[in-house]
Amino acid sequence: MYKVKVYVTLRESVLDPQGNAVKQSLHSMSYKEVSDVRIGKYMELTIEKSEKDVEAQVKEMCSRLLANTVIEDFRYEIEECVAQ
Amino acid sequence: MYKVKVYVTLRESVLDPQGNAVKQSLHSMSYKEVSDVRIGKYMELTIEKSEKDVEAQVKEMCSRLLANTVIEDFRYEIEECVAQ
Repeated sequence: MYKVKVYVTLRESVLDPQGNAVKQSLHSMSYKEVSDVRIGKYMELTIEKSEKDVEAQVKEMCSRLLANTVIEDFRYEIEECVAQ
Repeated sequence: MYKVKVYVTLRESVLDPQGNAVKQSLHSMSYKEVSDVRIGKYMELTIEKSEKDVEAQVKEMCSRLLANTVIEDFRYEIEECVAQ
């Protein structure tokens, strides 16, 4: 079994209105030191072992479904777990 | 300057319909090995240096605004950056 952590973030060049809204809220709560907020997605997948190459699979899933590669970047960490 | 990474995840006991929808989609794309998907949020904050304790601040921001602690857990990593 594999535990896969996927991080999807907006590309640097893409505006992040949601992040801006959070920044404004933090400022209005008097956290004025916060100068930038970027919001992304974090996903945890559990993948059963199979003959297929898990890394290639994860990469494919990210680019086909989990991230919109036109405006988003992704990265992932794969951890092998011993079944209990 | 600090770069702070915040990870907000649903608590184990809370159902994740969005994760389930993603799992179904992955199955229908023939990634049948995926047995579970949990979706969370990932945020990158940039915080300017001040006299205040950055860790205490981040913790407070998370529990006051960034995470809903009734149904979500959060964790964070703080990295100090040298200004360019």
